[in-house]
Amino acid sequence: MTALTPITCITIVAESVLESRLLGDLETAGARGWTITAARGHGPRGRRVSEIEGGNIRVEVLVSEAVAERIWQVLEDKYFPHYAIAAWSSEVGVVRAGRYTAVPTE
Amino acid sequence: MTALTPITCITIVAESVLESRLLGDLETAGARGWTITAARGHGPRGRRVSEIEGGNIRVEVLVSEAVAERIWQVLEDKYFPHYAIAAWSSEVGVVRAGRYTAVPTE
Amino acid sequence: MTALTPITCITIVAESVLESRLLGDLETAGARGWTITAARGHGPRGRRVSEIEGGNIRVEVLVSEAVAERIWQVLEDKYFPHYAIAAWSSEVGVVRAGRYTAVPTE
Repeated sequence: MTALTPITCITIVAESVLESRLLGDLETAGARGWTITAARGHGPRGRRVSEIEGGNIRVEVLVSEAVAERIWQVLEDKYFPHYAIAAWSSEVGVVRAGRYTAVPTE
Repeated sequence: MTALTPITCITIVAESVLESRLLGDLETAGARGWTITAARGHGPRGRRVSEIEGGNIRVEVLVSEAVAERIWQVLEDKYFPHYAIAAWSSEVGVVRAGRYTAVPTE
Repeated sequence: MTALTPITCITIVAESVLESRLLGDLETAGARGWTITAARGHGPRGRRVSEIEGGNIRVEVLVSEAVAERIWQVLEDKYFPHYAIAAWSSEVGVVRAGRYTAVPTE
């Protein structure tokens, strides 16, 4: 039986123009890898940036609980107040969890 | 510590031609936003619409339990009997849950 | 109330060149369908195949526990030692679970 280690997957949907800034912030928060797919989104209506049709990215990042907490803080501080961003967290299982959570030694 | 609110994420994979109809039904069911990515799918074999290679959409929608229930009803009534659709639900955590679940006031 | 059946969703992010081989292995393991989206990835640094920018696929497959176990074994045996692959498992709910898990009769 393959033993799976629980880890946090955070999915973030944001405007494409935010990509390099967002990825930089994820890396600073301790993320070691991510998966990006092109997306279109439609956000809650009646908000300042209500329609985000086209030109979005969907970023998935697998992280430890501590890094997840830092990512949420960054989103709260620097993104949610200013941009139409959707983000959610789920618990997933991986093998070789160290690949996603260990601090790089070089 | 960032407090996350549990919310339901429903993922639906359907043929692209169904997009506007499906999104209309999601909105009627109470969904306030969604994320769409282009996808290719391969469905269970030996079914009426067995191969759905190319031209699919993958829609993710974050909703309250009540809206999720209505979405499942719509899928059961109007889509599963007629189309090659895959759909699954997962529990995720968000901050500012009201953005995804509150009824728009305007 | 729609009754959801728990099922395992495995997500695999791999280089696009592995697509046909990977899908063949998934099918052999018992998967009956999958969803593919184009992706870009950035893997853990300081590994043999550390940067996997561009040309990735993100494959999602809904399977029974037994099939999930076989997929993890295949990934462990044939992919993780050789390729920059990320994979994670989550528990999701579906209706009509037999569509995803039943053995095809033809």
